[in-house]
Amino acid sequence: MTDSRQMMLMRQARERISFDGDALTNIIHDGASRAQARRDAWRRVEQAIGTADTSTLPAQYRDTSREGLYEEGLQSGVAHWTDSIRHNHDFFDSVTPRYALINSSPFGLNTMFRKAIELQASDEQRKSWLPMIYGGRWNGSYIQTELGHGTKFTHLETRARYHRESDEFDLHTPTTTATKFWPGCLGYSATHGVIMARLVLPDETGSDVDYGVHLFLLPIRDDTTGEVTPGVEVGDIGLKPAHNQNDNGYAIFNHVRISRTNMLMGEHSVDAQGNYTKVAHAKAMHQTMTSIRSYLPLVCALQLAQAVTIASRYSVVREQGHLPFSERGAAEIQIVNYKSQNFRLLTALSKAYAIMFASKHVEAVQRDLEVRRSMLDFSTFDYSHALQAGMKAWASDVAAQSAEDARKCCGGQGYLNTSGLPEIVASLTAICTLEGDNYALWQQTAGYLTKTLQSRGSSLETEVQEEEVSLKGTPDFLSPRFQLSLYRQRAAGCIKKAAERLSKANLTSTRSEAWNTEMMSLITAARAHVEYVVLQQFWSAVEALSATGQVSSSVLPVLKRLCSLFALSSIINPSTTDALTFLEHVPNLALWLDDIRDVVNDLLATLLPDLIGLTDAWDFSDASLASAIGMRDGNCYETLLNWTRQLPINVRARANGGIDPNFHSGVRPGLLDDLDAAGGVPTPPGSLHLFSDSKYRWK
Amino acid sequence: MTDSRQMMLMRQARERISFDGDALTNIIHDGASRAQARRDAWRRVEQAIGTADTSTLPAQYRDTSREGLYEEGLQSGVAHWTDSIRHNHDFFDSVTPRYALINSSPFGLNTMFRKAIELQASDEQRKSWLPMIYGGRWNGSYIQTELGHGTKFTHLETRARYHRESDEFDLHTPTTTATKFWPGCLGYSATHGVIMARLVLPDETGSDVDYGVHLFLLPIRDDTTGEVTPGVEVGDIGLKPAHNQNDNGYAIFNHVRISRTNMLMGEHSVDAQGNYTKVAHAKAMHQTMTSIRSYLPLVCALQLAQAVTIASRYSVVREQGHLPFSERGAAEIQIVNYKSQNFRLLTALSKAYAIMFASKHVEAVQRDLEVRRSMLDFSTFDYSHALQAGMKAWASDVAAQSAEDARKCCGGQGYLNTSGLPEIVASLTAICTLEGDNYALWQQTAGYLTKTLQSRGSSLETEVQEEEVSLKGTPDFLSPRFQLSLYRQRAAGCIKKAAERLSKANLTSTRSEAWNTEMMSLITAARAHVEYVVLQQFWSAVEALSATGQVSSSVLPVLKRLCSLFALSSIINPSTTDALTFLEHVPNLALWLDDIRDVVNDLLATLLPDLIGLTDAWDFSDASLASAIGMRDGNCYETLLNWTRQLPINVRARANGGIDPNFHSGVRPGLLDDLDAAGGVPTPPGSLHLFSDSKYRWK
Repeated sequence: MTDSRQMMLMRQARERISFDGDALTNIIHDGASRAQARRDAWRRVEQAIGTADTSTLPAQYRDTSREGLYEEGLQSGVAHWTDSIRHNHDFFDSVTPRYALINSSPFGLNTMFRKAIELQASDEQRKSWLPMIYGGRWNGSYIQTELGHGTKFTHLETRARYHRESDEFDLHTPTTTATKFWPGCLGYSATHGVIMARLVLPDETGSDVDYGVHLFLLPIRDDTTGEVTPGVEVGDIGLKPAHNQNDNGYAIFNHVRISRTNMLMGEHSVDAQGNYTKVAHAKAMHQTMTSIRSYLPLVCALQLAQAVTIASRYSVVREQGHLPFSERGAAEIQIVNYKSQNFRLLTALSKAYAIMFASKHVEAVQRDLEVRRSMLDFSTFDYSHALQAGMKAWASDVAAQSAEDARKCCGGQGYLNTSGLPEIVASLTAICTLEGDNYALWQQTAGYLTKTLQSRGSSLETEVQEEEVSLKGTPDFLSPRFQLSLYRQRAAGCIKKAAERLSKANLTSTRSEAWNTEMMSLITAARAHVEYVVLQQFWSAVEALSATGQVSSSVLPVLKRLCSLFALSSIINPSTTDALTFLEHVPNLALWLDDIRDVVNDLLATLLPDLIGLTDAWDFSDASLASAIGMRDGNCYETLLNWTRQLPINVRARANGGIDPNFHSGVRPGLLDDLDAAGGVPTPPGSLHLFSDSKYRWK
Repeated sequence: MTDSRQMMLMRQARERISFDGDALTNIIHDGASRAQARRDAWRRVEQAIGTADTSTLPAQYRDTSREGLYEEGLQSGVAHWTDSIRHNHDFFDSVTPRYALINSSPFGLNTMFRKAIELQASDEQRKSWLPMIYGGRWNGSYIQTELGHGTKFTHLETRARYHRESDEFDLHTPTTTATKFWPGCLGYSATHGVIMARLVLPDETGSDVDYGVHLFLLPIRDDTTGEVTPGVEVGDIGLKPAHNQNDNGYAIFNHVRISRTNMLMGEHSVDAQGNYTKVAHAKAMHQTMTSIRSYLPLVCALQLAQAVTIASRYSVVREQGHLPFSERGAAEIQIVNYKSQNFRLLTALSKAYAIMFASKHVEAVQRDLEVRRSMLDFSTFDYSHALQAGMKAWASDVAAQSAEDARKCCGGQGYLNTSGLPEIVASLTAICTLEGDNYALWQQTAGYLTKTLQSRGSSLETEVQEEEVSLKGTPDFLSPRFQLSLYRQRAAGCIKKAAERLSKANLTSTRSEAWNTEMMSLITAARAHVEYVVLQQFWSAVEALSATGQVSSSVLPVLKRLCSLFALSSIINPSTTDALTFLEHVPNLALWLDDIRDVVNDLLATLLPDLIGLTDAWDFSDASLASAIGMRDGNCYETLLNWTRQLPINVRARANGGIDPNFHSGVRPGLLDDLDAAGGVPTPPGSLHLFSDSKYRWK
């Protein structure tokens, strides 16, 4: 078979790349050896589940029922789970083989489950339980959210009441709103769970005393027979926009008995007499979720990069339309050459890189926090928490919005599940509300900023080493110092503004009410702060790479352009959130807007030949993209038609002479004969019909 | 059974509504009698398909396979289709019983099919074909898009070559990219289609001459047996994010013969000798699609209002968390009271109203255009086209973005399909790329604006009657004249800026290249223009209602507040597209930003008690929302749990002792015993694990 025109266009595009792609891959994936180990892991898993053969319609597009998607998830889940244990790696601790957040695998809550036990169990409990987890015998869930309560866990209602007689806790769901709802793997896959419930201890008089929410190890179902623990009603919560490979579940407890020693006792303990002892620092409780939060930005970067990879490849091979004023009869152009497409794809890609570099900073801060914690040093907790909260909110907002735009860049084809894009977008979108709703998280960052501003007079100075750069005269738009000063001025202006408005509101209302009134300004301040930190981290990373002297010289200029594009396009991008505040807080910016538009146009033109190289560098396998229009070879139309013919609905019809079984039961009843039945000619209904009232009515 | 707390909260919310809801319903739905007729139609259809009983899990959440969703679509499709014919109304010409674009029904392309024949067929053809359509005997599709070509139809490849010997056209798919792909109902439901294909006529020497794209009536399958026309390969294109009730299809033609008289001959004709005659104005060809485009904004308004209805109801009954600085032990608050939630819901709702009022203007312009067209007056075509293109792009962008945000307002629950929100958002999102991709449409509006600017010196003056309002001094922010002047200045500034940049680019490049370079500025100008027109139409509608003197006096102040909220919040809303241009083009605005923030805060506080009233007024039935968390009674948690228990995956497990059949085949293989197998203790993998290297390793 000869190559299609699309494959030829893709080859031509690759010939234009200016830099060493492997070098960039190794930067993204933390070095050549780790990049290779990842590649090997993906290859093994894709072989195991049969997705390596991309001429076959991927399993998730075959049986698309709730049940079928779960079954597909189990196959993939077993493969990545056993691979990570057998080959001793953590690649699937944060993402599935398709780069969705690992929570979307039926073996995906193990990371949180394990972390909770590592952080919150007593030494003795760890010694007894962790081997079952590290060895893969237990599949664990993390059971926090209830129907009526989410990440704000202090009001959870599930009760664990201690019974001294039997030395057991009685786990119970007292109301409908106390129903556990959402925990991953809970429906039908998890053998165990760490569950959050209110610890209730009877006092000397026998009255119940509520000690607040604590963690307990709960056996959910027998790991051999699958039988559910007596007293537990458990099930799946149904289809979601994505994450359907996982059985997010619900559970209702009817006086379920678990041993006293199932309470996680690293921080607090209850003895056989029902006495409560607090062991360590109270803040530790939050850490399971915040440690998870630390890898969410990287997942956002990966999924956004996936979406841009698919959209860029399709845009290179898709030829459609002309520019205005083109010569009559001119050939259609590759849609990547439309400036709007060029702008949308490259700015989205610059954000994926920005999030990726910033995520490495967030992970480093988290690792540092964990080391300190093991020495009972909590001094960096507040900053780390504020950073992680804001970064999670920002990265997920930006990635979800940009990935959806990349999907739209593919027009109708982007609306097909077989393009791979809908699932990427939908799975990414979940990150905006899971593990802490973004609007709640923004406020945590804002709280930290206002507190710091109050105590230090400036909330940015601790994170800024450079001296203030004058923004007078004609600046060098491409210089990091200019860009950072601009973002810093804006961030400082936003937090100052929010603080002023807060103070003013405080004059006439309570602190709570004032906070509420100025909430939108506070969120804006948090966002501007995070964007400054992200830009700072992007430039730091580029400078650090440059300083090593070991990075291919072809890569650095491309990364610098990409970082400048991120910084400058965000100012003038129509879709930028809070764009107004750039002009509001950077005095001279209004004079430079047209210059910035020109610089951005130049950057876009210079980077365009590298678009495919910059997406290839993420090293996504075709199987992981699962996209008929985004495969490496560019052969989108042949692949799409090939996959379409394999859809079960079409296979079923072909086996039935081309007729869908619903024709007689479903279509035929709608084909009326009201012309005859009505004994005359029906009038065409309604106002949308042009010819409804005169000459085209029959009798 | 006693009412739940959530039902009580919802009743309390309704008690606070300040205005006459029925009066507003009648405004939205074009008068009391039409509002009642709609209500009756919905009631009949919901009875017919059994969705009126909302205690039963809706059908679309039961069999969620590709095949099951199509089957569900057929049931609903037959019901709305026969209802509209038997009761002679047009309510289901634009939307399904769930308010999705009618294209998402397997009987949903009839509107376009019929319109094409009404507008493009000859008198004789109309007399012969339209009775079959009005009488409901044919289910028609509109077959334009191909794998390689979308709405830009001039390069379509499907050929219809005339054979004089048999007086037939030979319909053929010459390449893979010529495969018809996407047409609604084509897969398995349509009996006929209007198909776009290149008309090819042999000249005197026998050489083929290409006359460009024309329309043909194509019988697809037998309306009694379902048998597919010989030579046609046809099928479904698979699952999409929504619109799965419809069988968007593909078709490949292998020399299919259709009669010469199947060519639609209202505008051009081919006689038996193969002679081609042009009958009428060339622009008419576009009109099927543009006439469809005229009702898309209303669909956007309806679906956005649906999303906000669900999110508002949930936000009233959901109690979660506290404001910072709250008293210890305080009860949780209804999330609607968080300012961010208040802001997001009410600004989204103000957009739904804005789009709705503007859509009435667009439809009026279209009706006027059709009347003129019947008199061969095409003088308003360019303006009408530019308006419809821009309005479709703006309404779908805004509605999709805001509906997605409303979905996020519901946190995790908004990510459940049973919340109804994912389908609303996904089905709305399709409108951004269907019937003309938004980025292509923006440019059409921009083209009109630059042309008008060139010929008249101002592109806005024709649509503006009011004199210029001075923006000096402290303005009355709530006055329509102030707001309109502000939007007009911004729109005029944007188009002037784009034109200047275009002229400058023209100096160094071709007109095509210059257009491409400045595309983003041109799109910004088009958007600003449309937003000005929308605000104008919102205020016009309010003033017209006021002038009648017949509208309940309680309604007008609420609508005025909503319009002011739309105008003012759009300036300072962090999510506003192109917000920067307000400050860039309205000189004094920087001085007023804080005042505007204060006014918006006041409007939000005043409108908050009316939120439920303003969403109830759209008169969506519970069945049409299909939302466990958005029903009128507010009983979200009981309903959600009730529906969840009815999910087939849970019914199946209950019948099997609580064990999912996949447990043994899918879960069990992942539960390893590598602890023993490895002859020792496995090391916990990877860098994310805190205790991986020291005291918590066993031996």
